[in-house]
Amino acid sequence: MSELTGNCLIGQSGGPTAVINASVAGAVTEALNHECIEEIYGCRNGVLGILNEDLIDLAAESQQTIRALKHTPGAALGTCRYKLKKQQDFDRVLEVFKAHNIRYFFYAGGNDSQDTADKISKLAQAQGWEMRVIGIPKTIDNDLPVTDHCPGYGSVVKYICTTVRELACDNAAMGQHDLVSILEVMGRSAGWIAAGSALAKRRDHPHDPPHLIYLPEVAFTPEKFIEDVRRVLKRERFCLIVVGEGLVDPDGNYVSTSSAQIDAFGHSQLGGAGDYLRGLVEQHLGIKARSAKLGIVQRAAAHCASKADVEEAFMAGAAAVKAAVDGVTDKMITLVRGESDQYVCETGLADLSDIANGVKMLPREWINDDGVSMNQQFIRYALPLIQGESVVPYERGVPVFARLSFEPVERKLPGYDLL
Amino acid sequence: MSELTGNCLIGQSGGPTAVINASVAGAVTEALNHECIEEIYGCRNGVLGILNEDLIDLAAESQQTIRALKHTPGAALGTCRYKLKKQQDFDRVLEVFKAHNIRYFFYAGGNDSQDTADKISKLAQAQGWEMRVIGIPKTIDNDLPVTDHCPGYGSVVKYICTTVRELACDNAAMGQHDLVSILEVMGRSAGWIAAGSALAKRRDHPHDPPHLIYLPEVAFTPEKFIEDVRRVLKRERFCLIVVGEGLVDPDGNYVSTSSAQIDAFGHSQLGGAGDYLRGLVEQHLGIKARSAKLGIVQRAAAHCASKADVEEAFMAGAAAVKAAVDGVTDKMITLVRGESDQYVCETGLADLSDIANGVKMLPREWINDDGVSMNQQFIRYALPLIQGESVVPYERGVPVFARLSFEPVERKLPGYDLL
Repeated sequence: MSELTGNCLIGQSGGPTAVINASVAGAVTEALNHECIEEIYGCRNGVLGILNEDLIDLAAESQQTIRALKHTPGAALGTCRYKLKKQQDFDRVLEVFKAHNIRYFFYAGGNDSQDTADKISKLAQAQGWEMRVIGIPKTIDNDLPVTDHCPGYGSVVKYICTTVRELACDNAAMGQHDLVSILEVMGRSAGWIAAGSALAKRRDHPHDPPHLIYLPEVAFTPEKFIEDVRRVLKRERFCLIVVGEGLVDPDGNYVSTSSAQIDAFGHSQLGGAGDYLRGLVEQHLGIKARSAKLGIVQRAAAHCASKADVEEAFMAGAAAVKAAVDGVTDKMITLVRGESDQYVCETGLADLSDIANGVKMLPREWINDDGVSMNQQFIRYALPLIQGESVVPYERGVPVFARLSFEPVERKLPGYDLL
Repeated sequence: MSELTGNCLIGQSGGPTAVINASVAGAVTEALNHECIEEIYGCRNGVLGILNEDLIDLAAESQQTIRALKHTPGAALGTCRYKLKKQQDFDRVLEVFKAHNIRYFFYAGGNDSQDTADKISKLAQAQGWEMRVIGIPKTIDNDLPVTDHCPGYGSVVKYICTTVRELACDNAAMGQHDLVSILEVMGRSAGWIAAGSALAKRRDHPHDPPHLIYLPEVAFTPEKFIEDVRRVLKRERFCLIVVGEGLVDPDGNYVSTSSAQIDAFGHSQLGGAGDYLRGLVEQHLGIKARSAKLGIVQRAAAHCASKADVEEAFMAGAAAVKAAVDGVTDKMITLVRGESDQYVCETGLADLSDIANGVKMLPREWINDDGVSMNQQFIRYALPLIQGESVVPYERGVPVFARLSFEPVERKLPGYDLL
């Protein structure tokens, strides 16, 4: 391993989570420990900030602010969904890196972001620019391969389970007659988040809500749905349903396509599965149904974040810096679960290229045969991820979050035309 | 004042809140202090439980359970929206009261519920059955007259302000281009809840979200709305909008009537104002908009309840019992704000009949001339109501709420046919 001296750059990309800032806090905190890292920069809005040479001096932020990042949702550096495509874009990135002597690049994001980091690293190697690139995992969707789970997932699940428990109290109060309530949660192509709502059930209380969980992994038919609801209402005073936004019919089409739009990465932007189910209940069963759609509220709910998740996100950020200083490059930090019964989590490494193009599906064998509930294997997997309560400071009745001072790094290059 | 010895009955009615159980805890705790109250009963599902003679023994619940009611959402005794109409129903209520020697009746609810309590009391007087009836205020809608504010309101506002702060972090992260996000909140006929979101702004930071608040009090036109959004996006990187579900056009019609239904009290059940605004933004501005609809999640969010609200709800329950023991009847407990600058809250009394038929509107003079923001008078009114954080115990990562054992009181009468 050769010692590499220079500056580091930290970026965030993709959809924000409740804990992606904790990863930045971890990376900054760790970077301060290493003399080979001279300046600690952040790029605003991911690769857009690199292209625009819009860098900030993270070492100039107060320690208070860096610490507060641990409980601040969103993405404090700003994020983007911009996809580097043209060779010119990649050349510009390298030009900015060279101008600012960036020798360490840490990029927190999902698979698209790890793909970007991978491509940047390969280009740097091709051009003989010595640098180390380490990805930091991030996604509420929990769909990155290799890593046991993803920072961000535990917190969204904890918030949804809290919501389900509370909704259950409300629904039970009104339960003198049939009542169906539907909670739509995120999850574009995998049901990890909807599945997580199963943790709201008490151990050995199979009748606890949620009574029905609809996952994108299980083809949806209105006929079975109506039967499912009927069955629940025969034995319970109300029926609480959690549905993932990406629900599909047997042909693989989204059940609710009315608001489907395609984003820059070719992903459909969904919504409306909850209202669709509500319509089915009212139309076919003549029963009052209520739906709620948490939307992006759920991924921002830092006030209800999992302490385990916050700590692992921080650890992943710190581990990225440690690995790079140790000479590692082209890897993403993974979370590795210990073998023992007692949950322990350490970090590991995976090739960026393996992350970039893989997706981890919710294992079919963790879904019960009824298609609408999760088995003990899933519970064992997910339960440790929501443990502990993150503490958020309140001022005048509302949570207070970190606000970066965004000390700009002086520009050294002419401007760049994004178009 | 004559000493009246006998049993007491506590009931809950209307939509649940995060703190209506705290009022029951307050009433039960206080009732235990008075020897003239022999048994402490609860009726399941409000007046329905009286008609069905479905009473439970609240004194048989553990102290632990009663204490846990302070942080438990929903309505632990069950609630209803059943309206006593027939003379036969009223006669049955009295018959049940006499059979169980009910001399004290405490009913927590909104104006419909106070109306019910009033009618029951008048009937008892007409029949010479000596009893004391005290209402306990409850409604997230904050629209009961006479009382300064209503238990339940502070907690829903605190949760919404927390959500707005978090959403703001998320939106700011994505803010490299125009972005509109819309949060739909409850509020059938008054904008109290939507207005409360103004507390998410920091003092002296007029640019803080929410940038636009749409209230049922201000007639809505798409033209002004589009202008409002345009204006915000000229000066901010994103536009965060809070909208009350009961938004109306200049003719007084709900802007989103597609899902309007009428409940047993003749109230419209609304939904869809957020999606309606989202459509307007996308259609007229060609800008991506995202909406979330918190639905009944917001009124159940005990994990984010206001400590001030919980304590006042408890105090209102206790005050109801104290007043009745002191000989008062036909009153509802009110919350009375002290005159000093430092917020203090005491209880007072109002005639049930004054509550039953009144509605407290959001004062027009608390809304700024722009129609989409609140002034300092509103802030001064609402800010004290969201102070302090209620502490909810967590077990295995999720909040634990009280579960009553529902010890039944032996029936003494033949069954009653509700139809």
